Parts: sequence; C-alpha cells; structure tokens
Amino acid sequence: MRLRMGMVGGGLDAMAGELHRRAAALDSRVEFVAGALSSTPERSHTAAKAWGLARGYGTWREMLEAEQKLPAAERIEFVTVATPNHLHVPVSAAFAVSGFHVACDKPIGISLEEARSVCRVVEKSGIVFMLTHNYTGYPMVKQARHMIAGGELGDLLKVVVDYPQGWLLQPIEKQGHKGAEWRTDPLKSGAAGCLADIGSHAQHMMHTVTGLEIEELCADFGHLHGRKVDDDISILLRFRGGARGMLSASQVMAGEEGGPNFRIYGARGALEWKQLEPESLVFRQPGQPVRTLRRGEPYLCDATKRASRLPPGHPEGYYEAFGNLYRNFADAIIARRKGVRVEEDFPTAVDGARTMAFIETALESNAAGGRWTKVKDHKH
Amino acid sequence: MRLRMGMVGGGLDAMAGELHRRAAALDSRVEFVAGALSSTPERSHTAAKAWGLARGYGTWREMLEAEQKLPAAERIEFVTVATPNHLHVPVSAAFAVSGFHVACDKPIGISLEEARSVCRVVEKSGIVFMLTHNYTGYPMVKQARHMIAGGELGDLLKVVVDYPQGWLLQPIEKQGHKGAEWRTDPLKSGAAGCLADIGSHAQHMMHTVTGLEIEELCADFGHLHGRKVDDDISILLRFRGGARGMLSASQVMAGEEGGPNFRIYGARGALEWKQLEPESLVFRQPGQPVRTLRRGEPYLCDATKRASRLPPGHPEGYYEAFGNLYRNFADAIIARRKGVRVEEDFPTAVDGARTMAFIETALESNAAGGRWTKVKDHKH
Amino acid sequence: MRLRMGMVGGGLDAMAGELHRRAAALDSRVEFVAGALSSTPERSHTAAKAWGLARGYGTWREMLEAEQKLPAAERIEFVTVATPNHLHVPVSAAFAVSGFHVACDKPIGISLEEARSVCRVVEKSGIVFMLTHNYTGYPMVKQARHMIAGGELGDLLKVVVDYPQGWLLQPIEKQGHKGAEWRTDPLKSGAAGCLADIGSHAQHMMHTVTGLEIEELCADFGHLHGRKVDDDISILLRFRGGARGMLSASQVMAGEEGGPNFRIYGARGALEWKQLEPESLVFRQPGQPVRTLRRGEPYLCDATKRASRLPPGHPEGYYEAFGNLYRNFADAIIARRKGVRVEEDFPTAVDGARTMAFIETALESNAAGGRWTKVKDHKH
Amino acid sequence: MRLRMGMVGGGLDAMAGELHRRAAALDSRVEFVAGALSSTPERSHTAAKAWGLARGYGTWREMLEAEQKLPAAERIEFVTVATPNHLHVPVSAAFAVSGFHVACDKPIGISLEEARSVCRVVEKSGIVFMLTHNYTGYPMVKQARHMIAGGELGDLLKVVVDYPQGWLLQPIEKQGHKGAEWRTDPLKSGAAGCLADIGSHAQHMMHTVTGLEIEELCADFGHLHGRKVDDDISILLRFRGGARGMLSASQVMAGEEGGPNFRIYGARGALEWKQLEPESLVFRQPGQPVRTLRRGEPYLCDATKRASRLPPGHPEGYYEAFGNLYRNFADAIIARRKGVRVEEDFPTAVDGARTMAFIETALESNAAGGRWTKVKDHKH
Repeated sequence: MRLRMGMVGGGLDAMAGELHRRAAALDSRVEFVAGALSSTPERSHTAAKAWGLARGYGTWREMLEAEQKLPAAERIEFVTVATPNHLHVPVSAAFAVSGFHVACDKPIGISLEEARSVCRVVEKSGIVFMLTHNYTGYPMVKQARHMIAGGELGDLLKVVVDYPQGWLLQPIEKQGHKGAEWRTDPLKSGAAGCLADIGSHAQHMMHTVTGLEIEELCADFGHLHGRKVDDDISILLRFRGGARGMLSASQVMAGEEGGPNFRIYGARGALEWKQLEPESLVFRQPGQPVRTLRRGEPYLCDATKRASRLPPGHPEGYYEAFGNLYRNFADAIIARRKGVRVEEDFPTAVDGARTMAFIETALESNAAGGRWTKVKDHKH
Repeated sequence: MRLRMGMVGGGLDAMAGELHRRAAALDSRVEFVAGALSSTPERSHTAAKAWGLARGYGTWREMLEAEQKLPAAERIEFVTVATPNHLHVPVSAAFAVSGFHVACDKPIGISLEEARSVCRVVEKSGIVFMLTHNYTGYPMVKQARHMIAGGELGDLLKVVVDYPQGWLLQPIEKQGHKGAEWRTDPLKSGAAGCLADIGSHAQHMMHTVTGLEIEELCADFGHLHGRKVDDDISILLRFRGGARGMLSASQVMAGEEGGPNFRIYGARGALEWKQLEPESLVFRQPGQPVRTLRRGEPYLCDATKRASRLPPGHPEGYYEAFGNLYRNFADAIIARRKGVRVEEDFPTAVDGARTMAFIETALESNAAGGRWTKVKDHKH
Repeated sequence: MRLRMGMVGGGLDAMAGELHRRAAALDSRVEFVAGALSSTPERSHTAAKAWGLARGYGTWREMLEAEQKLPAAERIEFVTVATPNHLHVPVSAAFAVSGFHVACDKPIGISLEEARSVCRVVEKSGIVFMLTHNYTGYPMVKQARHMIAGGELGDLLKVVVDYPQGWLLQPIEKQGHKGAEWRTDPLKSGAAGCLADIGSHAQHMMHTVTGLEIEELCADFGHLHGRKVDDDISILLRFRGGARGMLSASQVMAGEEGGPNFRIYGARGALEWKQLEPESLVFRQPGQPVRTLRRGEPYLCDATKRASRLPPGHPEGYYEAFGNLYRNFADAIIARRKGVRVEEDFPTAVDGARTMAFIETALESNAAGGRWTKVKDHKH
Repeated sequence: MRLRMGMVGGGLDAMAGELHRRAAALDSRVEFVAGALSSTPERSHTAAKAWGLARGYGTWREMLEAEQKLPAAERIEFVTVATPNHLHVPVSAAFAVSGFHVACDKPIGISLEEARSVCRVVEKSGIVFMLTHNYTGYPMVKQARHMIAGGELGDLLKVVVDYPQGWLLQPIEKQGHKGAEWRTDPLKSGAAGCLADIGSHAQHMMHTVTGLEIEELCADFGHLHGRKVDDDISILLRFRGGARGMLSASQVMAGEEGGPNFRIYGARGALEWKQLEPESLVFRQPGQPVRTLRRGEPYLCDATKRASRLPPGHPEGYYEAFGNLYRNFADAIIARRKGVRVEEDFPTAVDGARTMAFIETALESNAAGGRWTKVKDHKH
C-alpha cells in the first residue's frame, strides 16, 4: 500500500524537487499525486503536467484547500515542502494544522522563532514531521552514531566537520541560475547563506552522530561578489561536557564537490567518514590496525543494515541515503495511523529548531566580529 | 507514459529480481505489472502478491499465453528474464517470437548455439533485446569508451580486467544459499561457473570499452570444495590487431566485494576504472599530471552526461548504472513503436553471442590444460 | 668536500638527534664530528661514543670553547641545536656570535623577544641560520609554493592547515617518555605545547606555501590530564588582504599519525597536499579534471626537481625532505665562504620570529577566552 | 666500525650506482672506498673522482688484483656489482673466489647455468652473497611474509603480482638513454628484457612473501619498436600444492610509475600491498572490517620493526627499503667474520638461481607460443 504524496515547490529549482521525487519513490512505498510546484500558477501547472501528476494546483493554498475536501482515500497523506527557505514554515504549518504529515526541506525556516512555532504545531497536531537533512540517511553515518552511542570512542574530545563546495565561486546568481538566486537573496533564504544551506547539514550531521550539544561558538564568515549572505563559514565550537569542535562549510572552494565529511575523536578511538566515499567508515584506535567498516557487511548495527538495499560490492549513493529518510518517514506515518509512535530515525522539528538556534547564534557571533556566543535555547 | 513490464524468475534468488525491479523503476518510465516469479506456481503466486503485481502467474508459459490475449493497452510490453541461466534462452525466445521485447539477465544462455538462435529470433521478430550487463551502464565507463573510440589512448597495447569477489569462499551452496546453489550446478548455470557469472561481465566490459575482439585465449581455472564448475579464472588474451590482455575473475577471493575493474593501456595514454569507485575515471598520459575525470562534470561526453542523474558531489551507484540500461531500453522500445531504430546504447543479443563464444572457448582451453585456443565465431 | 657538523642535544630525545644526523648525512656532504649531546656530561659522552663522534663534549659551553680553539681545517663549521626549546636561543646565539653557522630545531625559542635577538645576532654575525621546519623541504610543497606564487590559484580565499597526531592521548609524560616530558613542561618547552611543537610546523607550512601574513587570529586550546600546556589547538585566521584560514593541530587525536596537511583555495583553483602521501599534489580547477601532480615528473618547477633524488616510482619520504633543508643549508654555507649570498631555500631566523609572534598571539588569544587578537610584529 | 665497500659498474647507468651508494650509506655502517665504475678506464676514473673515492680503478680486474694486495685493514670487504646483467656472474664469481663478499644487482646473471655456478662458488668460498631485490626490503613486505608464514591467510589459493612501468613506451634506447640501451640489448641484458629487469622483482617478491614454488607456467610476451627483448609480460602460474597465480610486468604502460604490487588470497584472508604506498598493508578477512596495518606500529612482527627507522607519521620510502638489505648484509658479514652464520634476511644466490630458472622457463614458454612449461630445477 502506497502513501499519497503532494509537493509544494520543487519546480523552480529543478534539483530539489527531483531529489525528493526520486527519493520518495525509491522503495515504491510512495505515490506522488499532487503538487503546487512553482511560484506562479502557470509554471506550477506546467510542472505538474510534466511530471504527470494526477492533480496540479496553481498555489499551495489552493492545494491545501482542495486536498482537504477530497475523500480520505484519495487525498494526499503528506506534503513535501521544497520551496525556498522563507516559505518552509508558512507551508509546513498550514498543512500540519490541517492534519497532513510534512516532509520539509532544510533548514526548517528562517528564524528560531519560526522553528519553535513549527515544533508547537507538530506537537499539538500529532502529525509526523520530517526535516530532510538527507546526509544522515547514509548507512555508515548510522553506524558511526551507533558506535559513539555505544561508547566505542570513549569520551569525545574533538569533532571536525567540513562541507566544501565550489559551485558559487563565480557570481552565477547574476547569470540566471535560479538555485543560486534565491540562496543568495536574504528575502528568500533568510539572513544566512552557506550557513543555512549546507552549514545546517554539517551541524545536523555533527549532532546526530555525536549527540553533543553546542554550548558556545565563535563564527567567522566570508562572502564574495558583494553577496548579502555568507558563502564561506568557519566556526569554533565548545560543547557541553567539554569537547571542542570545528565546523566549516563553503560554496566558493574551487573544484570541491561536496560533503559533509567528519572526523570524530574520543579518548579511545576515532571515526572518519566522507560523503563522497559513503560506503566506508574508518575506525582508528591507538595501537591497532586501522579498521575500515564497509556498508553491507554483517558486523554492522541494525539501523545501518535496515538502511541498506544492496549487498557489498554494489555501490549505493545519494538517492539511497535520501530514500532512507522517506522509508522511515513512511513507517512512522503508517504506525501513526494505527495510533502507534515508533522511533523516528529521521530528522525532526526539534532538530530543525536546534539547527536554527545554531544558525542565529552563528550569525550573531559573526556580526559581533567573531565573538564567542552562547547558543540559544532551541526548546523554548 | 510508462512501459508495462513483466518478469520471469527473480523470486528464487531475491537479489536478481529486486535489482531488475528497482533498476527498471528508477526513472518512473516502467510499470511492473505481471510476473511468473519462481520455479513453482505456489511460490510464484506468493512472490507476485508480495510485490503487489497486478497479475501473478504460476509459470512463464501460462504468463506468455495469458498476456498475449490481453488487449494491447493492458498487456506487458517487455519481459525481464531473471531465471537461472539454463532458462534464459527458452523464455527469451518464446516471448520474442510472440512480439514481446526482452530484457535478459546475463549470460544470454548456456551455449553459443543457444545464443545464436536468440540472435536469429531477435533479428526476425524485430523486437528490442537487451542483455543486462549492467556495469557498462556506469557513466564513466561510457566516458572511457568514448575516449578510446576517439583515439585519446592511441593504439591499444594491453588490457587488464579483473572482477574479484569472495562470497563463494565457503561452500555456501551446501548450506541453503539459493543463489549459490544454482550458480554451482552445471544443470542450471551451464558448464561455466564464475566464468559465466562474472567473467562474462569482465569480458563484456573489456569489449564494450575497447571495441577489441579476442582472437585467441589461454585459460586456467580453479575450483574449491569439489565444485563442478569453476570459481576462479585467469585468462590470457590476444586480440585481433596485436594488443594483449589479462582477464581474471574469482568468487573465492577472501574479503573482496566485487568489480569489474579495468586498466587499459595505449600508445599515448591509459585509463583506469574501478567499480567500487565508479564516479572516477583515471587518465594517465606520459609526462602529464594524472587526470581524474569525475561524473557530472561539463567536460564529459554526451552519452556519459545522459547517463547521469545528479550533479557532482551527490554519489551515484549501482542502481543508477543498472537503470541506465533500462532507460535506454525504454527509449529503444518507444522508438521501435514508431518504426524508428535508434542507437542501442545497451548490451544486445550479438554481445551475448560474443560472450558465449568467449565462454565456450575458455572452457575448451582450460579443459585442454590451458592451451591457446582460437575464439569461436559468434556470428554464424 | 664535506662540511663538519657538531650537535648540541639530540641524545636525550633519541628521535630528534637521529633525524638531524641522518638528514644531514643524506647527501654525503656533511661529516658529523663533534657533539655535546645530552643534559649531563656523563650521558653526553656516552652518546658521543655510541655515535662514534671524533670529539664528544660534556656540555655545549665546553664544546663551543674547544671548537673555537681548533684549527679552521678541523673545527666544526656549523652546529645543529636539537635541545628542548628553552635552550634553542642560548645555544644558537652563542655559536652564532662565535661565527659558527647554525641549524636550529623548531620553534626558534620560547618567546618573540628571544627570536628577535636571534635575528639580530644572525644579521650582525653574517652566519647562515636555518630553522628545521623540515616539512617544507618536501618537493611537492615547493611545487605548491611555486604554483601559488605564479598565480595559478588566482587570489587566495581560504587556507586550511591541519596537523593531527595522537601520541599524547595517554599521559605518557608521567610514564617516563622523555620527549613527552619536556614537551609538556613549560619550563622546557615554553608556555606553548602542541602549539609550539607542531602548530608551529602548520603555521610555517601555511606561510611558506601561500606567502600570506596573518593579521589577526582567534585561538581555542584544549589540554588533557591536567597538562600545563595545550595539546590540541583550533585557530581561526584572518590574513592581510582578506583571505581567511583555519589552522588546527592536535597531539591527542586517537590513531592519527601526523601531518601537516593543507588545502588552499583561490579564485581560480585549489591545491591539496598530505604529509603521509607526500609525493602527490592535487590541483583542482573548476570545470576541469582533477590533476594529481607527482614527484619526479618533468612538468615540475626547478626547486621541486632539485629537491628530488629518485625518479617517479621510487617513493621518497621524510628523510629526503629533511635532507633537502640540509642540502640547501650546505649550499648557502659554501657560498658564504666565497662571500656570496645565494637564495636561502630553507626556513630562516625571520621565519622563526614570525612563528614566535604567531605563538605568542595565539597564547594571548586563548588566554583571553578566544578573543580575536592582532598578530604581533615579528620584525621589530 | 664501518665496512669498506667497492663497486663495479654503476657509473654507466647513473641511477643504479647512485641507488647502491646511498642505500649502503644509509645507516652509516658502510664506507665506499673503491670502484671500477664504468666500461672504459677513462670514464671509470672520472666517475671515481666525481664520487670522491679513495681508490679508482680502470677495470674490475685491475681492481680485484690491487685490492687483494692491500693490507686487510685497508682493502674492501665487499663489492657491489652494478654492471649490465651479462657481467654480473663474471665479476661476482671472481671477487667471491678471492674471498670478497658480494652484493650483486638483479638478476643474478643471464642464464640458469651461470646462476648455479655462483651458488657453487658462494657455497665453497664461504662468502656472504646478497642479490639486491630491494623491494623485499620494505618493512610491510616482511610483515606480509610473517603473517602468511604464520598461517593468518590459511592455505593460499591465488597470488597476483604486477609491476607496471611506462618508461620504455617510446624507443628511448635509440635516443641515447644508456639504461634503456643495455636493457634492450640481448648481448648485455640476456635474452630477457622486462622479464629480467622487473619481472624478476615480481617473481622474487611473490616467492619471498608466500614461500610458494612455481611448478609450471604459461608466458605471453610483447615487445614494441622492433625490440629484440620483451617489454611486456603476462604469465599464468601453477604452484606446487595447488595454488594459482598471475604475474605481469610491463615497461610500456603509459603513465605507470612502478611496482611491484601484490594481492595474495588464502582460505581465511587476503593481503594487498602496493609499492607506491609502501607503508600500508591491507588485510581482508571475510565478515570483518578491512584492516590496514601501518609501518611503525607496535603490532608488527620483529623483522618489520627492525626494518623501520622512523615512527609512524614519518614516511619512509625506497632508500630505506634498499638500505634494509645492506643493513642485514652488513650484519651477516660481521657475524661471518666471527665465524657465525646468522639468518640472512636478504635475497641470496639461491634466490637468484630460482629467479633464473623462472626466467629461462618463461622465455621457453613464450617461445613455444605460450605453452605450459615445467619450471626448471634451480638447485642442480
């Protein structure tokens, strides 16, 4: 039985919509039936037709209204929000209060206050909310999380996360590149640029894998071409409990394809993972041979095994990682129908709020010239 | 508009069927509607139900008969043959003569004579026939083919292809492993074991990328645990035109995940590719920095670009490569409907015959103690 | 004709002395004849005997006095200072004012004031002074320096240097490890621990390769086991001209062997180098295949070629890099004899002062809780 | 106390002499005092002067005669033979019968009969004879040997050794390249080209690490540019006891720097090593994380530790590996003086004879069109 999916946005920036569409479809558990896919009714209808959707809408409000009136057996069960950042919360909240489950692209919104409001709506409405920090869907990331939670590294001492990209090295936002346009426009992306776009992935990865909470941070940002938002970020971190960290991300690093990549050091061992070699997790222990754990092998933890579709020797990649989010999201929705709450092995609204607190604090630190700043409370 | 797909086999060996199902679905151009999925009617029906197929059949003959009687707008348009090897030709040929297009798992059959008969049926019936040597679907393999065809390596001198696996190191065929059972049973796999199973991939890769035709070969096989078929092969090659080669494959190499991997040397340069790092193609030229070409980049050839779904930094893998075969297969079917023949950028029945000639020659060479043996003519 | 070499220190910490001894001997241009090798006369004489030196002395003062009295044709021409840090300047300065050339281990001393005094002595005495930041002796580091100086990266935007080690993860200084003892004792190493020991290498590497001068920095240090000096450092950098950087080093990263490693990003390209794979330099340019330059190849710059002893395919390593410093040092000494000053392709006293300014500033920044701090002027 | 070393040859082909000179000097246990370094008296004297030797001779016969007459405390104790292959045996044997120890470049000679004669002379004279297959001096090669001898791989099944080079892709022997000239001239190199030059390294590596003896082989050679000797070899191997192998080497593989590289598969595990990454040994076991053993670590065997000069994080390379041969050779000579015979952890005359049997058999197999041929007995 398939879940009926709708999407808001995704037609403007071809890539994001396409990613969600394919990721959701990967395990044949989702049927994509309705959408309000672009910023004008005309383009929305064109996009819906191009994708062969059963129901194309001109605007997301129209879609929300119409879907609500459909019989339960026809209407969408969840909506994917793939708009520019400034619309994440308005759309997510509207669908959530109407009882639709929500898969929202990252970051959750453009302010911590917005994020908290989503948390409240989610809690009150009882819907399932997923934030698509897709990189944490990789099997070997789950293995790292498992090993750290199990104490295999001992107390954590230092965490290094980096997300290097190069696609904004030239001012392509002035040359008609839609994705670059809104990402460098504070009205659409919020006050944060690279920080929100991929720095958020790096922070979420760091938290997911280590469980550490940032206590204070010191941020230093750069931007080229007179951009109004950052395109390169360097942040020092102090975690609760005493560990330290470095988080960096950039969209102006010549020739870099992307991350996130992490190295995590503890009192007894260390783990290293790179998104471009996602099937390997390197485990170092003092005085021991370096161990490379590989996806698909029998020694991995259950969550990692469940996140794997192919045996070793058959490389999995980005889509499978993204699909793992949708797979677990679908499980949670189906359980919720039955009144059951299962463990949600995907990023949640609370994760989104934590990330917005990080973003706002980093913006504040950088604006103050790189002052150490306590991270805001994301819970209240 | 989606193509309706049926499948024969694929339920016995969970992996092969699953691979075809997902690969075919990857671009949402195929709808999987019917199947005779296993070797007994009971298990076939169970499998069809498990996969939610519209029409489950007890046997492939039943399926063929029933589908033919359906209206054109309902019946399957192509069948995927995912049975053990000995059934490839009977099933493929029966569907082909009835006008169904065929996607057949490799190798094409269990004898060169069988393979030739398929070629004749394909030619006569006018259907589209695809042999799923999926590894040649990788984008960077297409790039290697393009560069060699374009003369960037100069005259070829030496070709090295290797496909190392380790999953048959223990006699798991005696412990209930279905895939191992039929692959080590000459009645089902044919006289060749590893040679047919993955050696065929290595040979097909070698031919696809270089265009070279083997003139004669010298084969030396091993087998463990009293197996009746080979599980480790080493073959020296002499190509028409003077180039030389080494082809090896094994299913008893401890800890190896899989290939195929190749290194190709010419008078002016060399290319290296490894299946476990499929997004990179290494290009060496004397006196030049080593160049690593990466999937998704603008400098790649058109066939490579068409075979790519994601920008750089978003790893693609096995499914995407397999899906590229089905995508091009679908294009060919749709063109064929319109009476047009497009370039078939996927393995064909002729490729299958070439591989069977290779397999039979290698078996003969090994049986003669490793004697150099002329490769049989695969065309007549 | 060989240069006669003396050494002070090097017997206490077996490794440093051995490194200098072998590096200096590598090209057979140096003859090691005299030494005051340890902190007590007894151990000094024992060490001198063990190494078969012509003249062993009990203390460095004794050595200085005695060598001065020898005929010019017998006495040492240069001294290598391989003591703990606090003795670097007293020994270096004493030999320098007496006209001996000096090869001093890094860092140059334990304060900027000390470093400046060495610069003055060097300038006044006319001797050749080399600071043994040996990692900049690697051929491919010189190649990076050449390419950046030649503008191949365009304007520099971001510099990332990291030097990860793990040997001080356990408190081995309390278990009799001599090298760990003095490195964690502020009386011997100065106020900086990891910062002075390997952070200095990272900073020197960064400056040598890019030519950038740090304008201000923000430092955050950690230390385990109640150590009085840092054992883990994270530093954000702002360079004159607008580039930004991250510099990190650690001696408590489980299982890490060592660096330094760098990634340097400019407006047109990027370079990456790792000390554990020293023969490769990775050059990325947008829209181009990744180029890996390899030691020994004809396309490299002259300084890189001169720094190479073996053709490609014959790995060179740490000793060769270290030996390159001594080779160029020997050239400079021989030229100086003839009254000629040649380009000094090795770290100088001025480099040492720059590094001490960096160290003092970083200590100050960290002590102030991680405040951005202007780097002190190392010249006056 | 240093051993006095002489050299015959090494001036013609600058590289070989230089390699021996540096490798022998690496541990300061050898003093290079005399030589007959080239093929004419004039060039020999010039070379001896250039290297600052105490005693330069015009010919090796002159050198042998003169050194014999010197007092024991002055005359050379061993001679390094670095001539083209055809002179290896005449020179080695002459010095050996006169009581000088011999370090001879590989291969031991140009025929099995020659090799056997050397074995007899060595046995009779009681001298220490070392054949400089330097690649087996790498620490991690010794570790592989240790693990296999200790049964960590179980029974061996398949061995793959490859030595790819590209320096003879162009006919540089016609353009004045001395090293290429004699290596492609059967009068100087013997009937084997690449086979003798680097194929011998590959075979020696294979035997040293595995202990396996080849029972029969099947060889297929290529050669470009009308060369009279092979420049590319592919050989299938059957070992006593049932294991199989593939050995290949080439000097015409575009852009390849060199090997040898090996992969060794057993019933319980596998080892992989590459000469260009000599500090790592990869150990695969079914169902286990891949283990990468690193030089310098505490878990390595004694012979590996003894072969290491630097701690982890300080790359060692080619010279250190070569130096390990000379170090153990020196130990053996010093022990022999005292009438003691120690384990000789370096290639011996018997190894040389085994390799010549391999070479002659491979030549014969290839000449017969690639016929499986029993390997000759190297002992009698």
